[in-house]
Amino acid sequence: MNDTFLKACRGEAVDYTPVWLMRQAGRYLPEYHAVRSKYTFLEMCKTPEAAAEVTIQPVDILGVDAAILFSDILVPLEKMGTPLEFHEKRGPVFPEPIRDQAAVARLHVPEPETELPYVLETIRILRRELAGRVPLIGFSGAPFTLATYLIEGGSSKNYFLTKKMMYTDPALYRDLLVKITDCTIEYLAAQAAAGAQALQIFDSWAGVLAPNDFAEFAIPYVKRIISTLKERGVTVPIIYFANNGATLLPQSLESGADVLGLDWRIRLDDAVRVVGQKVSLQGNMDPIALLLPPAKMEALIRDILDQARGARGHIFNLGHGIVPEIPPEQARFFVETVHRLSKRQ
Amino acid sequence: MNDTFLKACRGEAVDYTPVWLMRQAGRYLPEYHAVRSKYTFLEMCKTPEAAAEVTIQPVDILGVDAAILFSDILVPLEKMGTPLEFHEKRGPVFPEPIRDQAAVARLHVPEPETELPYVLETIRILRRELAGRVPLIGFSGAPFTLATYLIEGGSSKNYFLTKKMMYTDPALYRDLLVKITDCTIEYLAAQAAAGAQALQIFDSWAGVLAPNDFAEFAIPYVKRIISTLKERGVTVPIIYFANNGATLLPQSLESGADVLGLDWRIRLDDAVRVVGQKVSLQGNMDPIALLLPPAKMEALIRDILDQARGARGHIFNLGHGIVPEIPPEQARFFVETVHRLSKRQ
Repeated sequence: MNDTFLKACRGEAVDYTPVWLMRQAGRYLPEYHAVRSKYTFLEMCKTPEAAAEVTIQPVDILGVDAAILFSDILVPLEKMGTPLEFHEKRGPVFPEPIRDQAAVARLHVPEPETELPYVLETIRILRRELAGRVPLIGFSGAPFTLATYLIEGGSSKNYFLTKKMMYTDPALYRDLLVKITDCTIEYLAAQAAAGAQALQIFDSWAGVLAPNDFAEFAIPYVKRIISTLKERGVTVPIIYFANNGATLLPQSLESGADVLGLDWRIRLDDAVRVVGQKVSLQGNMDPIALLLPPAKMEALIRDILDQARGARGHIFNLGHGIVPEIPPEQARFFVETVHRLSKRQ
Repeated sequence: MNDTFLKACRGEAVDYTPVWLMRQAGRYLPEYHAVRSKYTFLEMCKTPEAAAEVTIQPVDILGVDAAILFSDILVPLEKMGTPLEFHEKRGPVFPEPIRDQAAVARLHVPEPETELPYVLETIRILRRELAGRVPLIGFSGAPFTLATYLIEGGSSKNYFLTKKMMYTDPALYRDLLVKITDCTIEYLAAQAAAGAQALQIFDSWAGVLAPNDFAEFAIPYVKRIISTLKERGVTVPIIYFANNGATLLPQSLESGADVLGLDWRIRLDDAVRVVGQKVSLQGNMDPIALLLPPAKMEALIRDILDQARGARGHIFNLGHGIVPEIPPEQARFFVETVHRLSKRQ
């Protein structure tokens, strides 16, 4: 079994730097389109065979060192009792946003085995089909990020309604976040029980918060998720990715995560100076730098590997998801180059 | 004359911390709507009496320590020969984006006095009407930010086409940036000659760049603008605002600006540790924190003032533009509170 990824998460010695790509099961792959064309996006998340098939594609095609469950961070929210729609242009829409105490009170904490069985079934299929080739990562959204979708009713430009609730009705905000946190604990515990070998918590919009607000309104809930999972005996590595979170690293350390994910806005050596040997780091090439010609991409990868030398452990990744316009051969060159250059070091 | 703002820009002693708000001439004010309803957005930018009227409104209504010219960073680009439209929903649109050498070659560097006379006339009216009450700030976009609009054809989600040009055709990118830089130098020099008493350069999208890319593809052009202006004898303070630029401060220092603007994602004391006494700082309350109840907003303002104690000079501001939903009385309370608390210090 290729357990390089898990070793790097734990800060153990590795023969080369493991690499995977956020959104690696995605629209840049023709093989993905072939499966995706048969379903709506949500249908595909709920069809274990299809979700498992696209999850494995980048393992075969790119040679990455980890697979990540194909799903969406919003999938469990639907089962909290809030209808969810995906529109081609607008993206996700919650037509009944959560903005008052009555709406929060109606939210329900789903029981994953009975209410989200397709996710757990996908994980079980994947563990069988991967058969130890690479580890499988499960995931969830972080409570702050999930809350923004419920409060705003979908994506947002400046998170006005979310911050308005934080600033003017912090008790309501807290009640909502606690409920989302409880949902996320059950969801991640069930994923680990079904076979996920690592868990990543995506805080996609954390970067819109000032450091003090992040400390008060976001990180305590992440900390509660991770500490509760560990208390319940979940031992798989946990990765916390606060997107655009360069200034939030000191607080992110308090999450208790084993690995912190980083976007490309911060130099890895600067991040190492903040986090020391407390956690491993994951990241952080600009996804669009996958367009660089070979010699330049190689130089960039070498630079990032150099920057990460002081880290407890390093998992190479992009700083955000791969975009649909990237030619798959560029992604394959990226993976090969990380492997080749890190073996030489 | 109230020159507190100019003194703080230069790092001279002040009796209290000066304050203004980005986008202070804006849609949160009913008085603004009364003027704006008579024109399209671009028409208003080109009508000196109207632009001057809304520029002065926040000086009268809020008691801020500086006025900033009402205009838009895209106004000079239109005169480079690229049609510009403002759509209510999509925002600015350039229907003929600049993506090849022929399009770059066709771009023209406008002569401000003849091709952008309305901007300079607005400045002259404002200097007369302000009559020394507060200084007048002129402004432009930074070349990288302006280039993104021309390349993408408007706003963008991930700046794919801009980065694609940077990564795969750096010579074309450089030629485009040089032309925009030349345009910006003439534009800012003309604003200073017409009477602008400070100049702010807005790099609204700098925060999408990795530090190394920012150093290579953005800051050299800002540096060239500022050094050329200073060589030409422009002595007014120059403020550089790289939005979402917490990790870009070391490079931003190289711009040669007198003041660096900061958004709310970075603590001011952390920023002071990076910039030392080389520049003054401007910022940085979260604009939506204007919704906080009085006691909490006061505590936040006090905290930001405390964080800024070590700075060479501090101009209080929001970390981004004020949003339309803010009640004007909250903005007035913000300005009064900055004045009151900083006088006590």
